[in-house]
Amino acid sequence: MRWLRYTLDGSTRWGQLEGDQIAPGDGDPFAGWTAAAGKIPLSSVKIEVPVVPRTFYCAGKNYAGHIAAVSAAGVYSADVPAEPYVAYRATSALIALDEPILVPQDSRELQYEGELAVVIGSRARRVAEGDALRHVLGYTIYNDVTERGWQRRDITNWRAKNSDTFSPLGPWIVTDPNWSTMETIVRVDGVETGRFRTAEMIFGVAQFIAAISRHVTLHPGDVISMGADGDSPNLRPGQVVEVEITGVGILRNPLAAGTD
Amino acid sequence: MRWLRYTLDGSTRWGQLEGDQIAPGDGDPFAGWTAAAGKIPLSSVKIEVPVVPRTFYCAGKNYAGHIAAVSAAGVYSADVPAEPYVAYRATSALIALDEPILVPQDSRELQYEGELAVVIGSRARRVAEGDALRHVLGYTIYNDVTERGWQRRDITNWRAKNSDTFSPLGPWIVTDPNWSTMETIVRVDGVETGRFRTAEMIFGVAQFIAAISRHVTLHPGDVISMGADGDSPNLRPGQVVEVEITGVGILRNPLAAGTD
Repeated sequence: MRWLRYTLDGSTRWGQLEGDQIAPGDGDPFAGWTAAAGKIPLSSVKIEVPVVPRTFYCAGKNYAGHIAAVSAAGVYSADVPAEPYVAYRATSALIALDEPILVPQDSRELQYEGELAVVIGSRARRVAEGDALRHVLGYTIYNDVTERGWQRRDITNWRAKNSDTFSPLGPWIVTDPNWSTMETIVRVDGVETGRFRTAEMIFGVAQFIAAISRHVTLHPGDVISMGADGDSPNLRPGQVVEVEITGVGILRNPLAAGTD
Repeated sequence: MRWLRYTLDGSTRWGQLEGDQIAPGDGDPFAGWTAAAGKIPLSSVKIEVPVVPRTFYCAGKNYAGHIAAVSAAGVYSADVPAEPYVAYRATSALIALDEPILVPQDSRELQYEGELAVVIGSRARRVAEGDALRHVLGYTIYNDVTERGWQRRDITNWRAKNSDTFSPLGPWIVTDPNWSTMETIVRVDGVETGRFRTAEMIFGVAQFIAAISRHVTLHPGDVISMGADGDSPNLRPGQVVEVEITGVGILRNPLAAGTD
């Protein structure tokens, strides 16, 4: 099943995506949703960020190839974490499918990080790994856009990863992806620049939910992005970056020159 | 003026505090508020967290005495930042006046950090220091509760500073404090354990607003906590911690044993 948050005629609602048609309805997938009559063509709506999380968690250093690439660029150590490495993103940077990533004028190393993002469906506190996936509504795609040069001297990543427009999320939430075949593929202007097996994380979704919920209550709509593998070329205004996760969708955003 | 968010008869609203009486009204101080008739005794309401920020920023290493104390405890280096050090807190940890801080069972060094917190009143992007304070609605108090032992190996502070109940905020928002006389005073079980001049920050409110808004849009209701000075004893269940900022108020919370 695919949950979509969209705007039509000035109203933002949740629907279910069936092919290129939206089944509309009332409510949301967290508190409850009821189907309404009719179908809406996907092409007639504005696709919104699938959820604005109350808290936006992310995994740091969660793929071996990414740790190797970023440490080789002098950003951080090559140490592999001994336990899930939990960080935060600010919701102020979120943008939706097709909205532009604004490249700051003093940016020289703006890079993508294509990530699987977990959307929490129900309250979770002190859940065991074996029960953790029951608290997942589904999965979407996150582009953890990073100014790699700024990251070198930005301990909290506040500027390097949270500047306005640095957080594309979407296009929708898939409840039942195929983990065994899932691949993350990144393209710049249609040319493939990265590909990795999405499931080859150092710590998996259930491990992160168990680790976070040991100390913090996870709430419906919270998001945990699971980290990226590999590296990225430096991106320029005028390019288009696409993060595809097979079985989930394609998150596509153009790059445009920022005014600052 | 003092803005208060309170619950009475199951309804949460904004009012203005006048002595020990609340002037009720409709709306909020960000989008607009209109006074209603009558007065409500402060003692008859539940005081709520004054605002749940969309993004909760905080200043790191912003008082010389705190940097000296925490670096002496082996948590981080004694380096003084060359520019405003911006970090985040998760809103999932927020609690209000009088709500208990739950001490995790495996915590040995739970400590307070009494801080002045700035509440943003209007959208701010690329504002100069000289214009920054126009975007402030007012000031409240934050206790940046920290498990100092966990902080040593928690690079992102996710667990050390964001575990459930580690973020008391309140009790209300004061629009016109007296900066020249303002002191932060902390008491444990009524005994003073810390006192510092609140204004003696390394980087001030206007500098933080200018630095953050250079890259990120600040929104109404966002909070920036300005950091603490000095250090703290280790706290135990059964104690009560009070953070007073003169001219703002007293944020008081009991400590209780957590179940985990």
